[in-house]
Amino acid sequence: MTLKIAVMPGDGIGPEITAQAVKVLEALKSDGLNIEFEHALIGGVAYREKGIPLPEETVALAKASDAVLFGAVGDFSLDTLPRHLRPEQAILGIRKALNLFANFRPAMVYEELADASTLRPEVVAGLDILIVRELTGDIYFGTPRGNRIAEDGPFKGEREAFDTMRYAETEIRRIAHVAFQAAQKRGGKLCSVDKANVLETTQFWRDIVTEVGKEYTDVELSHMYVDNCAMQLLKNPKQFDVIVTGNLFGDILSDEASMLTGSIGMLPSASLNESNFGLYEPIHGSAPDIAGKDLANPMATVLSAAMMLRYTFGLEDYAVRIENAVKSVLATGPRTGDIWRDGKVRTGTAGMGDAIVAALAKQ
Amino acid sequence: MTLKIAVMPGDGIGPEITAQAVKVLEALKSDGLNIEFEHALIGGVAYREKGIPLPEETVALAKASDAVLFGAVGDFSLDTLPRHLRPEQAILGIRKALNLFANFRPAMVYEELADASTLRPEVVAGLDILIVRELTGDIYFGTPRGNRIAEDGPFKGEREAFDTMRYAETEIRRIAHVAFQAAQKRGGKLCSVDKANVLETTQFWRDIVTEVGKEYTDVELSHMYVDNCAMQLLKNPKQFDVIVTGNLFGDILSDEASMLTGSIGMLPSASLNESNFGLYEPIHGSAPDIAGKDLANPMATVLSAAMMLRYTFGLEDYAVRIENAVKSVLATGPRTGDIWRDGKVRTGTAGMGDAIVAALAKQ
Ligand SMILES: CC(C)[C@H](C(=O)O)[C@@H](O)C(=O)O
Ligand SMILES: CC(C)[C@H](C(=O)O)[C@@H](O)C(=O)O
Repeated sequence: MTLKIAVMPGDGIGPEITAQAVKVLEALKSDGLNIEFEHALIGGVAYREKGIPLPEETVALAKASDAVLFGAVGDFSLDTLPRHLRPEQAILGIRKALNLFANFRPAMVYEELADASTLRPEVVAGLDILIVRELTGDIYFGTPRGNRIAEDGPFKGEREAFDTMRYAETEIRRIAHVAFQAAQKRGGKLCSVDKANVLETTQFWRDIVTEVGKEYTDVELSHMYVDNCAMQLLKNPKQFDVIVTGNLFGDILSDEASMLTGSIGMLPSASLNESNFGLYEPIHGSAPDIAGKDLANPMATVLSAAMMLRYTFGLEDYAVRIENAVKSVLATGPRTGDIWRDGKVRTGTAGMGDAIVAALAKQ
Repeated sequence: MTLKIAVMPGDGIGPEITAQAVKVLEALKSDGLNIEFEHALIGGVAYREKGIPLPEETVALAKASDAVLFGAVGDFSLDTLPRHLRPEQAILGIRKALNLFANFRPAMVYEELADASTLRPEVVAGLDILIVRELTGDIYFGTPRGNRIAEDGPFKGEREAFDTMRYAETEIRRIAHVAFQAAQKRGGKLCSVDKANVLETTQFWRDIVTEVGKEYTDVELSHMYVDNCAMQLLKNPKQFDVIVTGNLFGDILSDEASMLTGSIGMLPSASLNESNFGLYEPIHGSAPDIAGKDLANPMATVLSAAMMLRYTFGLEDYAVRIENAVKSVLATGPRTGDIWRDGKVRTGTAGMGDAIVAALAKQ
């Protein structure tokens, strides 16, 4: 069987970094990985060529593929477009269209890069946490939403805007199962984050997660308020193993957690549906300021490709090979500017891709 | 004129720490400060004595006073009560009842405590940022909210919970004015934080803040997405001067910002209404584990009293005297356990209050 990958480079540095991940996957072909690639437009580049950020044929290609390798979207020059035409809508749209409700965002500190963090080395050395973010519900998609004239309350008669936070039981149950199972495979600890002292939606979240937890007696479940979690991630991040939370809190906390590592050019992510179909992307953005200059670090995208082999295809061996190749380049190879240090050879995006391929060959 | 202060000690360490702040304010009487205190029940202690966390007479006393000095509320043993009876509801209720829409939360690093942070000293040394959080609107109070059976969408027929995020024009305008004016008195920079790429409410927020900004040409206004802000606070917190944001994002970001300092026993806050009436409280919680043991650091509450003199009464001189007394105790005095270091004398809650009073006397 040939694995069919839809490649969506997107904007800014997207094309350069996805090209390196494709190069690394191609290199595994000679070792028996049966894989092929088809490219599609998404984001600002799709808007420019097709008039919309998420063309129908892009969704269709994703649906006809076994997984999606995604670069990044975002283009400041399009920020004044009506919201539904902006590049970022493509990422929201494709998550929803493919029902990618489970977002895995690991935050780990590589030994060789422990000094990259703004936190004291002893606080973050060896950090390895996983944030499981619900990705297709919450206030991101809840209706009604919009602008109107207030019909009641103290501001009656004036303009107001509103959104709806909302979770149905099934949505909470399925992400809870995913998170408990992830915790089983890791350190056996799950912290569910909510604001149950204020929000009805998250009190319901807490209740359902607690219920689901009864099926996972081998996982130690705790609950934490989101404001406290934002503090605890700074105070003692290593107290966490897996964190599960809703779409909005997950957006904020996973970015905070990734910055704990100091090297967001290193962090991959996966967004999965019920049957482990997934979209894989680096957590960093499209970085238009360095686009096309062979400066971007492709490691996060290459590691996203490794996650794809693991989560969607169950090809743990190939995944580990890629991860080890990345580690050996970190240890002895050249580096892009974002992680460069005295004593290391400096290279570009393509050079980093080549170094990873060379490290694979040496295994 | 006698300044009439309503003192609401609340739960846990609340009574001990407010007692120290009262002691410090009393000490200024001999220097001409004309002030008197009346106590009221709030939080878990009010629930135990009166059956509700925010008794009517407590709100009435606040309304009949010139300002409120608040300790902390929260009592784990009451966490299983129906939500409207839990201690935390008192703080939400009193904010709303007194229309305290403007929450000021400074996060500053004292030179003597720069090593308390989990961040590298060079990243946080000299940090001095102010978060202005809107406190009476947003998803905290928006209606409708609750539980129901979903009437439409893919989860039709099953249980769901929901909340409403909501801001009216006036609510955004007034907090924007407060924030711009705070920036004028400080470094002249204001960063407004939203999630305008996803939420209608916060796109409206961005539009109105931008409009209000035209009246403050001496303030440099920028906008940032909340997820990015959670990262930037870690990456380079000193890039910020004043941050203004909504109730929910403010809850999360202000806690993150306070933990940057590493010493949340030092951080005061103010919650003001349109006419500068205010409620003043430490940002830390009720810490039931150390309650009644003379272990809590009262400095955050003492500094909250200083904020009261400044913001509600315009008594800048007395405010600065208290702040200087705190600084001199930090430099040469005894310390509570949370900020104790080798070479310092260890003291308790009351001892710290006495030391601040003694420092005042020496000025
Ligand atoms: C671009 C934006 C809509 C998106 C989100 O908020 O989900 C991004 O921040 C992310 O985390 O992938
Ligand atoms: C206790 C809770 C309701 C409250 C809030 O969320 O506002 C607290 O976290 C705060 O920040 O004062």
